[in-house]
Order: sequence, then structure tokens, then C-alpha cells
Amino acid sequence: MANTLGEFRSYRQRMNDRIMESEHLGIKRFFNLDTAAYRDGALDARTKELLGLVASLVLRCDDCVDYHLIQCVDAGLADAELHDAMNVALVVGGSIVIPHLRHAFATLEQLRAPRSGAPAEG
Amino acid sequence: MANTLGEFRSYRQRMNDRIMESEHLGIKRFFNLDTAAYRDGALDARTKELLGLVASLVLRCDDCVDYHLIQCVDAGLADAELHDAMNVALVVGGSIVIPHLRHAFATLEQLRAPRSGAPAEG
Amino acid sequence: MANTLGEFRSYRQRMNDRIMESEHLGIKRFFNLDTAAYRDGALDARTKELLGLVASLVLRCDDCVDYHLIQCVDAGLADAELHDAMNVALVVGGSIVIPHLRHAFATLEQLRAPRSGAPAEG
Amino acid sequence: MANTLGEFRSYRQRMNDRIMESEHLGIKRFFNLDTAAYRDGALDARTKELLGLVASLVLRCDDCVDYHLIQCVDAGLADAELHDAMNVALVVGGSIVIPHLRHAFATLEQLRAPRSGAPAEG
Amino acid sequence: MANTLGEFRSYRQRMNDRIMESEHLGIKRFFNLDTAAYRDGALDARTKELLGLVASLVLRCDDCVDYHLIQCVDAGLADAELHDAMNVALVVGGSIVIPHLRHAFATLEQLRAPRSGAPAEG
Amino acid sequence: MANTLGEFRSYRQRMNDRIMESEHLGIKRFFNLDTAAYRDGALDARTKELLGLVASLVLRCDDCVDYHLIQCVDAGLADAELHDAMNVALVVGGSIVIPHLRHAFATLEQLRAPRSGAPAEG
Repeated sequence: MANTLGEFRSYRQRMNDRIMESEHLGIKRFFNLDTAAYRDGALDARTKELLGLVASLVLRCDDCVDYHLIQCVDAGLADAELHDAMNVALVVGGSIVIPHLRHAFATLEQLRAPRSGAPAEG
Repeated sequence: MANTLGEFRSYRQRMNDRIMESEHLGIKRFFNLDTAAYRDGALDARTKELLGLVASLVLRCDDCVDYHLIQCVDAGLADAELHDAMNVALVVGGSIVIPHLRHAFATLEQLRAPRSGAPAEG
Repeated sequence: MANTLGEFRSYRQRMNDRIMESEHLGIKRFFNLDTAAYRDGALDARTKELLGLVASLVLRCDDCVDYHLIQCVDAGLADAELHDAMNVALVVGGSIVIPHLRHAFATLEQLRAPRSGAPAEG
Repeated sequence: MANTLGEFRSYRQRMNDRIMESEHLGIKRFFNLDTAAYRDGALDARTKELLGLVASLVLRCDDCVDYHLIQCVDAGLADAELHDAMNVALVVGGSIVIPHLRHAFATLEQLRAPRSGAPAEG
Repeated sequence: MANTLGEFRSYRQRMNDRIMESEHLGIKRFFNLDTAAYRDGALDARTKELLGLVASLVLRCDDCVDYHLIQCVDAGLADAELHDAMNVALVVGGSIVIPHLRHAFATLEQLRAPRSGAPAEG
Repeated sequence: MANTLGEFRSYRQRMNDRIMESEHLGIKRFFNLDTAAYRDGALDARTKELLGLVASLVLRCDDCVDYHLIQCVDAGLADAELHDAMNVALVVGGSIVIPHLRHAFATLEQLRAPRSGAPAEG
């Protein structure tokens, strides 16, 4: 996995660990709720990740966009499907979303890049 | 169709007509793009309406929530599916979304209400 | 208790009941987390209600402002303290907060109004 | 002046008076700063009112939109100019702005309506 | 042209190209609408760029601020005019705008810097 | 003081100086109002800094979070109190606040780090 995205993942993991170490019950429960919201239910996880992606784009949160793009790619969504979702976010959220669209395309480029040989994440 | 929602529809139609009468090319094109964004494409219209619903909830726009709920119900989405999408919006957007969740439930109640006899809209 | 605020309370209660009847586990847990966040902890409930009030003002949510003002008044906060908190919200959030400041003052007026004789809510 | 807009003006005035009566120095100064920001300076008042209108639209505040539309009409701006500014707001802010665009058109309609005979406001 | 701003421009161009290569009709049309919104019309381009700048500041988007500042400087707007517009954005949007005001001043500094000898962009 | 936070402080100071040099009366007065809003009043400075922190988190402004965390630590607030305030922000603002919660924990880590020997700021 290319540079920036890898750094994001390790920073994200390290700081989430710190947050958990605070042992604040409310915060811990919130994190659990957040994870649970994207599990298969009446809607499947794949659709929910698209919902998370569009919500992240219209609220203009690059880290959240990255997180949900990773999940969307893992869930097997094709570029054309992701572009269609991004278009909804763009129309709803307006040109102020464009910088985050650029960010999303840059992240997607990294996620789709052929990785020379090795197992990337694990 | 019950009262408030019917009023919303006719106000919405009347003012959209006014906006079109301005003959502003940019505004007209924007409205076309907006309509087109929810048509079947790489993603189907049904999924796109869910995306529109969640975007509307996290951006906390009651009129937009109403519009997309109407479309979602027309597209055949079940309550359990809509609740699952609303839950994603709630977790992403926080308790500040709750008043709009109440609004969404009130609108959905109207949309699901058995209508005594007559053809409502058409 | 005067009109509008009483109506808000009963609408709020009725729709919260509807939401609970959906039996969506994620949504129910979110509502529990929300309630728990304002209980005495490292910070006391009184301070937390002020935090909720300011968050509601800068996010410009009138229903949330009403809810937290009710709690603040119940917690015994004086007008001067509430005005001081509102001032922070105004400076942080800008003139776009002013309509919600007007709303907050109107609600506070209702909450402070001497109620002729009778037990208002209960 | 037609109904709703007149009501908005008197509610706005009454609550602003209440806010001033709080004698909170910070809040009073903020209101002064707010008024001063739209006076002729390096940019003229007319241009500044357009800036206020667009800021109000993208931040989706109907009361603020009404206030600045009143000022814009007083400053002699033509409908075509206002529509052009609204179009910028629509493109920047996205379809989520549309309900506020409808509101702006409805307000403008009231402001442009021929008033039968009498002096309206004063 | 100094470093960061030059980098922003080339990143912006490269990613916009990528987005266009997606060949998503909705997205392409949105980009066209966005460009068209700032052309001379009932309002001149110079005024529209000021509208774009203020909208970007209150929505707190640094990349958008940079883009519109570049356009504003190209359109011949003086610092005093830009400061006046920024003041409107600050009052409307509140202290939360201040970090973006700092960013705007830093960008403006770069844009006004005498460039040693050579033609910078072209 | 560790790296990033020190850089933030000097950048912040340098750009605030630049902004003051613009001699824009409205902007200067706004900065004064902003400073004054957090002084002891009906509420003490300590409580007001907590209000500033929560407002900054729900509005998702990392620079503002850093500034108010510095003030909160100076005012003697304990980690458990800060976590409790952060939890309110998280519940009100939703998962979109999480990246800023990570940022807040990273900043707090720097602020609490034992500084080898020397007087840090002054």
C-alpha cells in the first residue's frame, strides 16, 4: 500500500488505541455503535458503506472518506459505482465538496494501484 | 395524502415553477443535474435515493428528507431498510440529527397511512 | 407553561416513542448514550448541560437549544450564566447564530414566566 | 407588506430588543460589529449585502436570507443580479440549498409585490 | 510563484484531470456549471469572485479560499476590498473562521509577493 | 514543547500579527470580542474554555481544538474532565467528530508530556 494511506491507517489505529485507553465508557460505547452501524442488517454492509461514503463527502471529512473508500473497495464496489455515489454527494453538497472529491480520487488511485508482489496489509 | 406533506408538495412545486420562470440558465441546469443524479446508472435509483436520504439527514434538511423519503417509499424500500439507513445517518451526524429523525418518522407515518379510498396524488 | 414549548415537549415525546417502537437496536442504543452523556461524571450535569446548549447553538438546532435550555433552567443556572454561555456560542458561531439566539431568548422567556397558579407540566 | 415577512420583522425586532435588555456587553458589541460590517467601506454596502445574502444561503439560514434580501432590495439590486448571486450560492452549496432558494424566491415575491396604496412599513 | 501555492495548483490540476477521465457525465456537467457560475452576467465576474471567496470562508474550505483568492487577485481586487469581504465572512461565520482567515492572509501574501524576475505561471 | 504544537503556536502568532497589520477596524474588534468571551464573568474562564473546546469539536476545527485544549490545560482541567467534555461533543456531533477526537488526544498527549528540564513556553 502506498505511503500516505498507510500512514493514515497506522496513525488512525494508534490514536484509536489511545482513545480506548481513556476508559471513558461513553466514548467506548460510541465506537462500538459506530462499528455496528455498518454491519449487514436490513441493508447489506456494501450499501451501508456507500451511505457512509456519501455522508462523509457531504460533511467534508477526508479521513472519513478514506476510511469508507477502503471499506467500499474491500466490499467489491466498482469504480463506476463509487463515481455514481460521489456524483450524488457532489450534487447534494455542491462545489465545496470538490476538494474532497479530488482527495477521494487520489485515495482510490492508491487503493487500485497494483502492488508489486507482496501482501499489502497483513 | 395527509395535510402537511400535501402542503409541502404543492408549495415545493409552486416555488420550483417560480425559480424556473427566472430563466436563469445556471439554475435551470443545476435542477436538471439534480434530477439526473438519482436516475438508474451504475447504481440503481433505489440505492441512490437511500444515499440522498442519508445525505439529507446528516446535513439536517427536513424538506430534503421529505423529498427523498417520498422517493424511497415509491421505490419500494421497507421500513426496516429505511431505519437502517437512518441509523447510519444518526451515528455519523450525532444527536443533532435527532430532531430530523423525529421529522422523518412523522413523514414516514404519513406516507404509510392507509388512504381512505381515493387515489391520493395522481 | 406557555403554548409552543408545551407543544414541542409533547411532539418530542410522541415521536421519540415512535422511534423506540421501531425496535432498531442501534438507534435505541444511541438514545441511551445521548441521555448518559449529560449525567454527573468527571464534570457535573450542570456544566454538561451548558456544553450541550453551546453545541446546539453553534450547530444551529432550535429543538436542541430548547431541550438543553429546559435542562439548564432545571439545573438552576441563572440568566447571567446562560447569557455568558450564549455569548461564547455567538462569538464562535457568528451572526448566523443570531436567529437561534432570538429563539433561545424567546424560550427562556417562557421558561421564566410566572405560571398563574397551577402546576404546569405535571 | 404582506403577512409572513411583516411578522418576521416584528418578531425579529422584539427579540433583538430582549437580547439588548440582557445588557451583556459581549453580545451588544457583537450586534454592533454585525451592523458595521455591511456599511460602505472599501466595498460598497450594495456589494456587501450580496456577500451577506450568499453567505446566508450557503449556510442555509432562512431568517438571514430574508434580512439580506430586504437590504438588497432597498439597495436597488435587480432581480437578475439577485438570481446571479443565488446561482453562485446554489453551485457552491449544492442541492441542499434549494429549499432556501425556494424561500428566497417566496420572500422576493413579497418584497416586489405592488402594495395597494399605503406606506407599508413606516 | 512560491512553493505551497504552486503545489496546490498542480495537484488541483492533476486531480481535476483524473476526475474528468472518469467520464461521469453528471460530474463533468457539474464542473462546467461551476466554471460558468463565475462568468460575467447580470453581476460581473469580479463581484462573483468575491461571492465565491466569502462563501468559501464561511464554509471553511481552504482550497476553495485559495482558488477564489487567485481569481480575485487576477480580477484586480485590492487588499482593502478583500479584507472588507473577509470581515463580512468573519462576522457571519464567527471565530471558527479565523484559522481560514489566517490561511487566506498567508495565501494573499504569496500572491502579492514580488516574483524575482520571471513570469511565474504562464 | 514538542514539535507540531510549537509550530502551530508560532504560525498562529505570525498570521494573527499579519491580520492585525491590515488595520481593518471590524476584524480587530472581532478579535478583541473573541478574547473577551473567555474571560471570567458570570461563568468562570475554566468553564468557558470547556465551552470553547466542545464548540470547536462539534464544528470540527482542529486549530480551534488545539487552542482551547492549551487553555484548558493551563486552567488546570484534568484529563477525565476533558474526556467527559469530548464525549458530549462526540455524542452531539457524531462519528464525523472522531478524526478531531483523535487530533485532540494527540494534542493532549503533547501537552501532558514531561518536558525535559527547561521552561517550555515562557
